[in-house]
Amino acid sequence: MKIGFVGLGHMGAPMALNLLKAGHTLSVFDLSEQAMQTLADAGATKAASPKAAVSGAEWVVTMLPAAAHVRSVLTAEDGVLAGIAKGVTIIDSSTIDPASAREFGKLAQAHGNRFVDAPVSGGTGGATAGTLTFMVGGSAELYESVKPVLSGMGKNIVHCGDTGTGQVAKICNNLVLGVTMAGVAEAMALGEALGIDAKVLGGIMNTSTGRCWSSDTYNPFPGVIETAPSTRGYTGGFGTDLMLKDLGLATDAAKSAHLPAFMGAIAQQLYQAMSSQGDGKLDFSAVIKLYRGTKG
Amino acid sequence: MKIGFVGLGHMGAPMALNLLKAGHTLSVFDLSEQAMQTLADAGATKAASPKAAVSGAEWVVTMLPAAAHVRSVLTAEDGVLAGIAKGVTIIDSSTIDPASAREFGKLAQAHGNRFVDAPVSGGTGGATAGTLTFMVGGSAELYESVKPVLSGMGKNIVHCGDTGTGQVAKICNNLVLGVTMAGVAEAMALGEALGIDAKVLGGIMNTSTGRCWSSDTYNPFPGVIETAPSTRGYTGGFGTDLMLKDLGLATDAAKSAHLPAFMGAIAQQLYQAMSSQGDGKLDFSAVIKLYRGTKG
Amino acid sequence: MKIGFVGLGHMGAPMALNLLKAGHTLSVFDLSEQAMQTLADAGATKAASPKAAVSGAEWVVTMLPAAAHVRSVLTAEDGVLAGIAKGVTIIDSSTIDPASAREFGKLAQAHGNRFVDAPVSGGTGGATAGTLTFMVGGSAELYESVKPVLSGMGKNIVHCGDTGTGQVAKICNNLVLGVTMAGVAEAMALGEALGIDAKVLGGIMNTSTGRCWSSDTYNPFPGVIETAPSTRGYTGGFGTDLMLKDLGLATDAAKSAHLPAFMGAIAQQLYQAMSSQGDGKLDFSAVIKLYRGTKG
Amino acid sequence: MKIGFVGLGHMGAPMALNLLKAGHTLSVFDLSEQAMQTLADAGATKAASPKAAVSGAEWVVTMLPAAAHVRSVLTAEDGVLAGIAKGVTIIDSSTIDPASAREFGKLAQAHGNRFVDAPVSGGTGGATAGTLTFMVGGSAELYESVKPVLSGMGKNIVHCGDTGTGQVAKICNNLVLGVTMAGVAEAMALGEALGIDAKVLGGIMNTSTGRCWSSDTYNPFPGVIETAPSTRGYTGGFGTDLMLKDLGLATDAAKSAHLPAFMGAIAQQLYQAMSSQGDGKLDFSAVIKLYRGTKG
Repeated sequence: MKIGFVGLGHMGAPMALNLLKAGHTLSVFDLSEQAMQTLADAGATKAASPKAAVSGAEWVVTMLPAAAHVRSVLTAEDGVLAGIAKGVTIIDSSTIDPASAREFGKLAQAHGNRFVDAPVSGGTGGATAGTLTFMVGGSAELYESVKPVLSGMGKNIVHCGDTGTGQVAKICNNLVLGVTMAGVAEAMALGEALGIDAKVLGGIMNTSTGRCWSSDTYNPFPGVIETAPSTRGYTGGFGTDLMLKDLGLATDAAKSAHLPAFMGAIAQQLYQAMSSQGDGKLDFSAVIKLYRGTKG
Repeated sequence: MKIGFVGLGHMGAPMALNLLKAGHTLSVFDLSEQAMQTLADAGATKAASPKAAVSGAEWVVTMLPAAAHVRSVLTAEDGVLAGIAKGVTIIDSSTIDPASAREFGKLAQAHGNRFVDAPVSGGTGGATAGTLTFMVGGSAELYESVKPVLSGMGKNIVHCGDTGTGQVAKICNNLVLGVTMAGVAEAMALGEALGIDAKVLGGIMNTSTGRCWSSDTYNPFPGVIETAPSTRGYTGGFGTDLMLKDLGLATDAAKSAHLPAFMGAIAQQLYQAMSSQGDGKLDFSAVIKLYRGTKG
Repeated sequence: MKIGFVGLGHMGAPMALNLLKAGHTLSVFDLSEQAMQTLADAGATKAASPKAAVSGAEWVVTMLPAAAHVRSVLTAEDGVLAGIAKGVTIIDSSTIDPASAREFGKLAQAHGNRFVDAPVSGGTGGATAGTLTFMVGGSAELYESVKPVLSGMGKNIVHCGDTGTGQVAKICNNLVLGVTMAGVAEAMALGEALGIDAKVLGGIMNTSTGRCWSSDTYNPFPGVIETAPSTRGYTGGFGTDLMLKDLGLATDAAKSAHLPAFMGAIAQQLYQAMSSQGDGKLDFSAVIKLYRGTKG
Repeated sequence: MKIGFVGLGHMGAPMALNLLKAGHTLSVFDLSEQAMQTLADAGATKAASPKAAVSGAEWVVTMLPAAAHVRSVLTAEDGVLAGIAKGVTIIDSSTIDPASAREFGKLAQAHGNRFVDAPVSGGTGGATAGTLTFMVGGSAELYESVKPVLSGMGKNIVHCGDTGTGQVAKICNNLVLGVTMAGVAEAMALGEALGIDAKVLGGIMNTSTGRCWSSDTYNPFPGVIETAPSTRGYTGGFGTDLMLKDLGLATDAAKSAHLPAFMGAIAQQLYQAMSSQGDGKLDFSAVIKLYRGTKG
């Protein structure tokens, strides 16, 4: 299939490469000429604008940093909506607030197009391996229609409900993730201070009611899980500033829903404290440094 | 073996019954005559005091509400230390602060006895079924020696390290549990308000990075997990006031260790708010009521 | 002087009335015909749009709910910038984020106009009595120039620094206010529960290091301060939803400044909890209800 | 009058010196020989034990670090109760939990003595200058009787209610103090980051609704208040570890009263974070370092 792809960052580039590998024809756009060249070297066509990238495309995929970028890419004079053929579906894999996703859905519809929000989980590793999870918001029929495209980039394509619910699923999941990681960090640091071996404590939690992904797969205490970023100096993985962005989306969404978010708000401040101390690029499990200091 | 057992409450009674079933001889004491009679009906001998209960015993098991009770039961004039033979091991399965556990270990040692802290997880269900997890603090040799006794009451007997580390493991695990449950409650309520189906959201979290026991086994949103207390009106399960006690132990332990406990402290206030509103007897997953109101 | 005034809500209407009383000529606009009629009855001219209201005006005052409204009123086809003469100064008394204030300052400048942010404190009482405090952001010369206009509506006109700093002052002050009120509420409820008379406790705090406006002028415990909203059922005063808005601005500003805001974030959740329980219209000191329940 | 004084630390020593200056006869005890010698040099009699210090005394004053010390000093074999004459009143100026104060009141009564809790505010400065505030818990008649003694050490002697309420007043006041200081620190750091001059911001808050002792007398931002510890490198003043102790008493008291303490709990974690980073001896206004980093 012929796909227009806009946004070739750390996530977008490997996702686009996988679409090429899956046999699709790609026309790509990014503000970075270098990012476009990498894709061109793999067989994609470089475009001069989002409008040009989606010209003649049967599908459009966007992967951008925030809602403001998506809005601009969609609505600019040389943007997606200006170049897209009627009836084509736009798949936005950016992580943005649900209200903006719904707004973009209406914009697309008014233009004679279809829109699904399809944010991902799995990080750059999953993007490269083609094992991402896609959380898809849109009608059941639309969900079925985008599956063949998304299956070129991920292995788990989940239908979340109507437009916007893909973003809701992503935000709520990452709210839990940010909270549990901060909680596990606190507990592991406390256990160490109270004299229990970290591996023993991790082992107990992982077979008991404290069990969670933040403990059994990504434990923030170095050495507990060999494959976790904590064991390699908090490099790789999911950056603190990205977690901060997602918790910001979560607490903003709670505000818009008139709900308190005590746990999310405090976790957000902890990652913010890390980031303002200069650790925003470290994996978010480095939040344990707030408890362990330089040992963390 | 001949075992003296002190403390026949919601947990202690079924634990003692399982020791009887396992073929041990029990002499029991509790302030409640009725609690003792139930055990007597099952074959135990009623004693007039902790001292009497442990007289002639090869092992002593205590299961009491708080450190103050353990101290009193051990050191009173008619207490355990007054009646116990030299060399006998005291197994304390109460959940108490690690410092007190260490103090009791020294008290026992000074008296010519041995002591392990062996708090449990698994609740009244696990106590009745004999499937409790025991977190054992004491030397490796002592751990091996108590295994035959504990295996009459549980199926998972974990060695945590020296005296007190059983309590450390329990407290740290439940700190994570209290935090994750509050976080999952917040996220599920937020998801509902933002228009995603609760079962769909639960399903996504449970196969993604938000996965945790509080979500995949004990989800606080009614109907997501059929066997969870949330689906039966937050009855049964692990009471809010018990979670509140354990988070109190965790934040007190953090204070004593000169460590902050941001996540634990806020979770503690949330369960406290529930409890002061009269919901202390509900399962702790009812914390979602703070977000969903009367729907919760 | 001839003044164009846009926004005649709970604050704007009495402010505009005071400008009339001070002898100024007013042309007013509001979406509510009724709000405009009240001003017309007092001598103002009704206008059909912001553009019409500011046509021929020597000064423009805007008093609107949020930054989005200010943006729209300034930049719409029939907005302020479309109707204003070159060189006229726009005084925006809305409470908005500092970044938007700076953006509006640049918009005005690009259009050949001048702009000051001049948010107020003092509430509807101060607006009616003409005793508001204005926190003015703009050059020293601009500050001097707007004083004669503002002195018709308030008695305390403070220069805060360059454009945007009026908003910074307002937001930072209200951050402290929201935090101290929640802290005083917590302490008064705790004192009551521990058996001290509320008036005695209030008296001690007010002559000691706990002294603050939230305690000595606006104490949340009924009866401690006779003139406080708490003593008249939390009516009048500064509504919870307004405090919630201002704490939202504060935590958003902290996010944009890459700073954590632990105290503000938790206070925000407490007011949010009140609001989502239906108490958003009560004075913000009703936050004590979260501690005292139905007594509060 | 003849007074037995136990506890000659940073606060107790200058308090005892002031009693001597006021013409009283003092017999003193402290674990530090050096502390006793200082008092002896000023005219006091050194005693070998609390029991000896209070032998023949008409009044007893104790000033100790925590409830455990008071309990020991009162009840030890060579303690106060063993040496005191019937009818003599014990004035405990230590800051401890209200429940312990009530327990000591009963202990004293059972022994034929009287007891008031009389914690102080005013710090070492007030202790030296004899300008302390005493918060007195005990009957009105007892309050009147202790006034002549306390007026030798302070100038503001406040009756708070029955036994224990002196401690309640102290704890609740310091809860507000700890919360407001953290809130002011957060707001001052935010204001700086957003570009307003700290003195201007301080000036606005101090004449507006953010006004509080933590801002107008003890502002944590260096240079805003010339006499504040912040302006002299956070030396002198009220140490972070002391604030941490008092917030610990406050949150413990809330726990015992079955009340949440959201604001106090978060403030406590912030001071704990400071302390665990090695800043526990700095004035508590140094909490602003958590926001301003090395600038603070």
